[in-house]
Amino acid sequence: MLSLYGEDIASRLLLGTAQYPSPSILAEAVRASGAGIVTVSLRRETAGGRTGGQFWELIRELGVRILPNTAGCHSVKEAVTTARMARDLFGTDWIKLEVIGHHDTLQPDVFGLVEAARILIEEGFKVFPYTTEDLVVAGRLLEAGCEVLMPWCAPIGSARGPVNPDALRSFRAEFPDIPLIVDAGLGRPSHAASVMELGFDAVLLNTAVAKAGDPAAMASAFAQAVEAGRRAFKAGPLEPRDMAVPSTPVIGKAVFE
Amino acid sequence: MLSLYGEDIASRLLLGTAQYPSPSILAEAVRASGAGIVTVSLRRETAGGRTGGQFWELIRELGVRILPNTAGCHSVKEAVTTARMARDLFGTDWIKLEVIGHHDTLQPDVFGLVEAARILIEEGFKVFPYTTEDLVVAGRLLEAGCEVLMPWCAPIGSARGPVNPDALRSFRAEFPDIPLIVDAGLGRPSHAASVMELGFDAVLLNTAVAKAGDPAAMASAFAQAVEAGRRAFKAGPLEPRDMAVPSTPVIGKAVFE
Amino acid sequence: MLSLYGEDIASRLLLGTAQYPSPSILAEAVRASGAGIVTVSLRRETAGGRTGGQFWELIRELGVRILPNTAGCHSVKEAVTTARMARDLFGTDWIKLEVIGHHDTLQPDVFGLVEAARILIEEGFKVFPYTTEDLVVAGRLLEAGCEVLMPWCAPIGSARGPVNPDALRSFRAEFPDIPLIVDAGLGRPSHAASVMELGFDAVLLNTAVAKAGDPAAMASAFAQAVEAGRRAFKAGPLEPRDMAVPSTPVIGKAVFE
Amino acid sequence: MLSLYGEDIASRLLLGTAQYPSPSILAEAVRASGAGIVTVSLRRETAGGRTGGQFWELIRELGVRILPNTAGCHSVKEAVTTARMARDLFGTDWIKLEVIGHHDTLQPDVFGLVEAARILIEEGFKVFPYTTEDLVVAGRLLEAGCEVLMPWCAPIGSARGPVNPDALRSFRAEFPDIPLIVDAGLGRPSHAASVMELGFDAVLLNTAVAKAGDPAAMASAFAQAVEAGRRAFKAGPLEPRDMAVPSTPVIGKAVFE
Repeated sequence: MLSLYGEDIASRLLLGTAQYPSPSILAEAVRASGAGIVTVSLRRETAGGRTGGQFWELIRELGVRILPNTAGCHSVKEAVTTARMARDLFGTDWIKLEVIGHHDTLQPDVFGLVEAARILIEEGFKVFPYTTEDLVVAGRLLEAGCEVLMPWCAPIGSARGPVNPDALRSFRAEFPDIPLIVDAGLGRPSHAASVMELGFDAVLLNTAVAKAGDPAAMASAFAQAVEAGRRAFKAGPLEPRDMAVPSTPVIGKAVFE
Repeated sequence: MLSLYGEDIASRLLLGTAQYPSPSILAEAVRASGAGIVTVSLRRETAGGRTGGQFWELIRELGVRILPNTAGCHSVKEAVTTARMARDLFGTDWIKLEVIGHHDTLQPDVFGLVEAARILIEEGFKVFPYTTEDLVVAGRLLEAGCEVLMPWCAPIGSARGPVNPDALRSFRAEFPDIPLIVDAGLGRPSHAASVMELGFDAVLLNTAVAKAGDPAAMASAFAQAVEAGRRAFKAGPLEPRDMAVPSTPVIGKAVFE
Repeated sequence: MLSLYGEDIASRLLLGTAQYPSPSILAEAVRASGAGIVTVSLRRETAGGRTGGQFWELIRELGVRILPNTAGCHSVKEAVTTARMARDLFGTDWIKLEVIGHHDTLQPDVFGLVEAARILIEEGFKVFPYTTEDLVVAGRLLEAGCEVLMPWCAPIGSARGPVNPDALRSFRAEFPDIPLIVDAGLGRPSHAASVMELGFDAVLLNTAVAKAGDPAAMASAFAQAVEAGRRAFKAGPLEPRDMAVPSTPVIGKAVFE
Repeated sequence: MLSLYGEDIASRLLLGTAQYPSPSILAEAVRASGAGIVTVSLRRETAGGRTGGQFWELIRELGVRILPNTAGCHSVKEAVTTARMARDLFGTDWIKLEVIGHHDTLQPDVFGLVEAARILIEEGFKVFPYTTEDLVVAGRLLEAGCEVLMPWCAPIGSARGPVNPDALRSFRAEFPDIPLIVDAGLGRPSHAASVMELGFDAVLLNTAVAKAGDPAAMASAFAQAVEAGRRAFKAGPLEPRDMAVPSTPVIGKAVFE
């Protein structure tokens, strides 16, 4: 079973809670996904007085673990402050750390990320860093005390799926014992299955579910795909071959003349 | 529900029965796959007296529908003769028609395929043709009376997955009302999910399951992936985007100064 | 040097003559390309009395060899009739044979193609067939008497470049001694270089040059890329590697402390 | 014309000097490439007394500009010390800065890279940083005073070509006015052409030439491909299309009945 910061997690699918058409559709999607962890953006929560409270009620009723995030933060200071507020508000020292470095691709600012991770870990946070596939950055995050890494596979919200599978393969090989969660860029269940087949431990989704025509059905499809990919990884998949080989060997041969 | 030649089929995963390490592992994999249809090579059945009979018993006990195939046939005559023998032996007019045109890639001989399809359909067979992604060949097969098409997505046994997704997309768009089963070339559950996401109706596997480290677990993984892909297709997946968009819109913004 | 039907051809770039903004830009592009062969659509020539004659004059002044084509023909009869008219009009038994099988992708009708090739070759034509990457179809074309094959790499005018490089590799390997010209689908010089690097003998372009912002400059760019690709093929390129290796081995090491 | 740190450079191909079978083959390849700049590893130069001196003579005779590099350096200290030694030895303040962060992929250590760049630029160096496609890292390098960036397109020596073209496109779009040289990972002339078609200003090669069967011929092939790609970029290439369009419009139509 997947273990994150010492806690056993039943599902290998984590779900974001932004951008759903309505709170009830969000609730339906979370249930359909079977996710045991959902991420929540503090910024939205603190935004609107009563709305925030209602949202918080909704999430609480789902009975899932909350992983607050620092989505939308573009500086170390902003991210650290948001994380502290999240700890107070949600009563958890888990934090999905985003320090956004670019307005368009929403790629992480790897410098700010490592710095913020250091600060927060010293304060007792359990940090889930949203990072790139850069192996050196990953190493720094581990040195800082992160026990989980969350590399992207494509820009946030792009739905492109793994644009650089070689890099993901290297990443998995480099950190065989660290829980690795692919975060950002997944668009379809096949994408999720493919990274699980590479041996990643879990995936985190948001846009691909929230913006689907039928979010709950899509959540359920992703849940199946994640399990399928995990099972395939453990079952020893065939490697692709350059040349075709017959799939039906002719043990005996009938006479046709 | 999937309907093939007027029969409702519960599962969208069809399984081949060649190349398994043992009969019991084959049986286990078929059960784990949930497949309602398995393909069987006549050539192996007629090969070995007692062995053939035992194999036949085994398949019968699985309680699944048999789709005999003409695997290994390289000419119209060979394929037609094999199909007739299969009808006698298995008591079905369903036939998966393979007329192999190339010893290495095992690509179909599209000329022989259309000719053999015409002959067999006149004799009352219900033909499931193993073909390429060629739209014109597909049209000829439909004219000949085929009501199902089985395009490859990569050479048989290559495990490469969809090497030409554009061609598969065109194929699906060209024949919106024909049941289309992707046959040959799938290596991993993510491959199966991806063609189902494109709207294909089912997949047929053999090598990817039979040669996996744990065939039954892999069969089960493929079954989940096929369902996931189908569900995603119907749930309206997000299209990939060129530029990233934020997955967590900032509805309200906290003050940090 | 490239030899086609017994004639030595200096350039490995063949150019189409349709869709240019103006006759003078066409002339400029042909000169910039260094092409020794251009294809001409009979249909346009017979279309407009005086316009046709002017176009013919223009081509004649370029001093290049004419390869008439049967572009736009959708049946064997149409293609054969067009080929015969082209022989009279252009005074050559060379014909680029297109039998279009699909209105959208403009893929060849492989059945009609083989049939038309047989008829024309019996009448003494030297046929350059526009075909797919199907190895069996290619074999039939050779049996019919074709001494050159022109596989597509993507749909005509799509500018997508080689969408299925594995298929092109198999095609080249299967017919080591036949001149193979990649026709249709090339969009950029890098695409042309890449198929030449695979060992193809030449490329045929039209849309990618005619519709470029500056057709003559683009023609010249393709000419360079074709030469680059050919040279690389002969120079023994490095195979891609799974793992990185240092590009600067440290023979000696300075002391830094 | 390409301008790097205020100097006009005639060729858009830069060449490394490591790994050649012999000094004379290196010399031949440099001449065939038309490169105006070659990179030289200090470590090799300081390594072997007489061998180093001979190598230096060889390079000097080629009449090209020297760009010393810090290949093989894994720390800021090592890289900075090497750069200083290079300035003395080669009499130039140009330095290709490599701070290697991973022994296998040879990816840059982006933290060390930015730090070393800052130190060297303060000492008056003109730094050419070997970096990843990370936009934030690139921004830091520019802030540090770099006026040129050298992103990789794949791991050093992998010969894989652009593994993440989307990232390269974003990189080019982000820094429209900075000279960008693709460094590392190119394996074939078509790879070089493709990055030039995206608008990159130049490429730097080593392994793909040095380890080719015929290095001088390969150098010449790359030179052509680089020019072809640049010319295509400026000539306004066609964008790929989803659907095929006819490449030979039928202006007039012959009568066939």
